[in-house]
Amino acid sequence: MPQNSSDSAFDRATSVSSAEGGGVVAELDPGWEVGGGILNGGYLLALAARAVLLGSPHPHPVAVSASFLRASAGGTARVELTPGSSGRTLANTGAVLTTDAGPALTAQVTTATLGQEPADWSANPVPVVPTPEECSAALRPEGVPVPGLVERLDIRFDPATAGWVEGRPAAEPRLRAWMRLADGREPDPLALLLFADALPPSGFAVGRLGWAPTVQLQVLVRALPAPGWCLVENSSSEVAGGWTDEDCRIWDSTGRLVAQSRQLARLPR
Amino acid sequence: MPQNSSDSAFDRATSVSSAEGGGVVAELDPGWEVGGGILNGGYLLALAARAVLLGSPHPHPVAVSASFLRASAGGTARVELTPGSSGRTLANTGAVLTTDAGPALTAQVTTATLGQEPADWSANPVPVVPTPEECSAALRPEGVPVPGLVERLDIRFDPATAGWVEGRPAAEPRLRAWMRLADGREPDPLALLLFADALPPSGFAVGRLGWAPTVQLQVLVRALPAPGWCLVENSSSEVAGGWTDEDCRIWDSTGRLVAQSRQLARLPR
Repeated sequence: MPQNSSDSAFDRATSVSSAEGGGVVAELDPGWEVGGGILNGGYLLALAARAVLLGSPHPHPVAVSASFLRASAGGTARVELTPGSSGRTLANTGAVLTTDAGPALTAQVTTATLGQEPADWSANPVPVVPTPEECSAALRPEGVPVPGLVERLDIRFDPATAGWVEGRPAAEPRLRAWMRLADGREPDPLALLLFADALPPSGFAVGRLGWAPTVQLQVLVRALPAPGWCLVENSSSEVAGGWTDEDCRIWDSTGRLVAQSRQLARLPR
Repeated sequence: MPQNSSDSAFDRATSVSSAEGGGVVAELDPGWEVGGGILNGGYLLALAARAVLLGSPHPHPVAVSASFLRASAGGTARVELTPGSSGRTLANTGAVLTTDAGPALTAQVTTATLGQEPADWSANPVPVVPTPEECSAALRPEGVPVPGLVERLDIRFDPATAGWVEGRPAAEPRLRAWMRLADGREPDPLALLLFADALPPSGFAVGRLGWAPTVQLQVLVRALPAPGWCLVENSSSEVAGGWTDEDCRIWDSTGRLVAQSRQLARLPR
């Protein structure tokens, strides 16, 4: 397990620094790609949120919305920050992540202080799934290339939603998997931003093995995650007119809901 | 029923015009307030989206995320637009709505062309509720002032989720109501942005009659609504640490899901 930030591949790949003359610079790590060198949206979102935290009076991203403007590859990036309102409880900041190809991502980030208080009300019981040890690691269907992102995460699919790997698609577009960073770094709100966009599209569950580019993604971080595995569930509730939603819920190792997200994605033709 | 735009109070209240020197100007109508002269967030969002549509190559907002920076009252407003990527299928624009008090709302709007094709997959069956005629109009609990917004909408609560009006709270934070514009204008994607933030907080259902200011709201418009009543359902899935989510689903008069939204709101102390 990493002893400090520099031992974590995730922390290194999302590290940011203040630029002379304002803004923030970063080096996008090409390893966090989902295929064809295109970087994962959750990775970009975590990096943009980290840039926001550099100048925020509050330590945690609690609500992050992003529009994905164009596919991005590795290389130098710049994050321009626009301060919004800032108060005792929360602060808002706009962020635009730009690469040599142009603006890649525009995000709105609300920061606050998260805790681990028990929920007053929850309709999000943790699903009953086998332990990570009982779930299969490294499920890789034939004919689908393994992207770099998959090497940087330890993902263990719930066998109940993994039939697609062996050509036995399910009836429902729902995927569940245990997830942690392969570098052993414990989860935190930034890692949850990554996890919220790290599973394949839930269409995979029903045998539709095409990528669905994210158009707009909102992630709400609801509590600080406990150390250990997170359980991530992705499902589509409505597929229509060439668009799909992806609803994601993430529970920590204590079974507590720590994040929920929704994205609108464009279906492959 | 309004014969044209100028006959609709909603269209008049959300009308926008291009300003000399760039940007868009509008007059915020104080009538769309939720109490104490504070304007409804959905109203502001519809107005901001209308400003984006002025310059968009596509006719409909399909994904709109907004951070609410400060409470706004009526008066002159300005919407600054930042063009993002623009293609054959969709375009992205940033919008910041500013009043005399400062920036009120920052939004990201994705536009495209919506249709009414049947869904390929849906896990959103329309809930079974009595007809609008069988539901009570103008449910107004004693001791809660009726805001201007409520005069501009025709809202008919499902009796199954309206016990709170008579001091009989439910066990679950869920509200359902038929909704249409009081001016008779038919629903469209802009009206859906309003409807997605027009019900009281779903905490009302369990007898917690306090307002919960919206921090960040994402609305996905999934299809063009058919004419007639919309059914709007609001529920909270997780209340913890002073925060709550509000999930909203909207079906049109044919029973088809036309919008879904999620917001993070701050609970009253």
